[in-house]
Amino acid sequence: MELSEKRARLRAMHDQDRPLILPNVWDAASARTLAGAGFAALASASHAVADSLGYEDGEKAPAGEMFAAAGRITRSVDVPVSIDAEAGYGLAPDELADRLREAGAAGCNIEDTTHANGMALADPESQAGRIAALRDADRELVINARVDVFVEGRWPAADGRLEEAVTRARAYLDAGADCVYPIGVTDESLLGELVARIPGPVNVLYRPGTPSLARLGELGVARVTFGPGLHRATLSLLGGLAAKIRDGGDPY
Amino acid sequence: MELSEKRARLRAMHDQDRPLILPNVWDAASARTLAGAGFAALASASHAVADSLGYEDGEKAPAGEMFAAAGRITRSVDVPVSIDAEAGYGLAPDELADRLREAGAAGCNIEDTTHANGMALADPESQAGRIAALRDADRELVINARVDVFVEGRWPAADGRLEEAVTRARAYLDAGADCVYPIGVTDESLLGELVARIPGPVNVLYRPGTPSLARLGELGVARVTFGPGLHRATLSLLGGLAAKIRDGGDPY
Repeated sequence: MELSEKRARLRAMHDQDRPLILPNVWDAASARTLAGAGFAALASASHAVADSLGYEDGEKAPAGEMFAAAGRITRSVDVPVSIDAEAGYGLAPDELADRLREAGAAGCNIEDTTHANGMALADPESQAGRIAALRDADRELVINARVDVFVEGRWPAADGRLEEAVTRARAYLDAGADCVYPIGVTDESLLGELVARIPGPVNVLYRPGTPSLARLGELGVARVTFGPGLHRATLSLLGGLAAKIRDGGDPY
Repeated sequence: MELSEKRARLRAMHDQDRPLILPNVWDAASARTLAGAGFAALASASHAVADSLGYEDGEKAPAGEMFAAAGRITRSVDVPVSIDAEAGYGLAPDELADRLREAGAAGCNIEDTTHANGMALADPESQAGRIAALRDADRELVINARVDVFVEGRWPAADGRLEEAVTRARAYLDAGADCVYPIGVTDESLLGELVARIPGPVNVLYRPGTPSLARLGELGVARVTFGPGLHRATLSLLGGLAAKIRDGGDPY
């Protein structure tokens, strides 16, 4: 399938009766396994990809290695793949667009956390400007704009978090994002309020404590991803097999 | 730990009361998980590494990508790692030794299957010559010489397989191999005969149907590896999680 076609299909999947379920992969084998299970599209999770390459998350891996890993994933399957591009690795938006296209990315995550001097929330206007420039650089790329105000420690004030999230989400959608992703929200009523007040598709990170996938659909969530959760589940199994072998038992 | 020290330690582990158990990894995250479980050394499995990179096994992945993956594995842990170098990717023995050293390999597997025109058994004398040249090129590298006569389809005759395996094993040990690896044997009496007749450490591939790890120890097996088995177990779990999510259920 041509990349343009993959992008058009991925974009259309944000407007379905049920949420778009995008399981997150980290390498070619995980991508093939998930595509083989019948998913029409996949996403990568930067944390899991970095872990697989031997780096910490948070743009600690060289961008070249992350894009090479992205390319290995997209080449291994014929479904659209959204690549987690973190905060864009300090690349200018047109260069980021080129690198994502070269890596075969149908879409991308772009987060409003800066990594230059510790992790901090990006200024919302400059982040909206980056998203607008990325949209200008590539009209087809499906952009999922992360809103990081609910990430532990990012929003210093006691109040105003929901308002800030809605303001950012609207600004990013106005700038050309296809979907917004307030990561780290598990509370059902807060999720409902976000979906109600954000005038565009909302991505939810599924993790233990989140409402069920069925309930997320009832709340109007457009898209569900799993971050590094599936990778962690496989490593947890591997750790269990390791313990069995180490203690003299048989693994299978 | 310096590479020389890792190699000396890995070599010494072939002469213990109990078999050296080397679980096979495919990337940095799996290596960290296994090292974290307390294993004193690890091995890679070319099939699993190639799968993770998006290639078929059997030297179908570019050698550069396989060595890069090996380097990511060895850099991620501080224990000795034996790298599965397949049949050596057509490299001259001194170049293969250099590439393994650069990748941080404490040891390697080298198989007597040729990949040039379909998969076939290498001539035993020329294979012994390659092992001798690899030994000359690097006195420290821990060489695990695979004997592939038990691989399905490799040995065309009805008889003579055991004799051929013993002859090859002796020749490879004489050439400087530290351990020999008659892959694909699960039968207990055949394993016992191989161990009894091969005058050096024997590596066994553990898989369903193989005697238990405890029994392999009683048989005098020096080293046990798992090939791509642990990777497959994680992909099997991932496939199960994928099916749950696909059918509307919750994964965790």
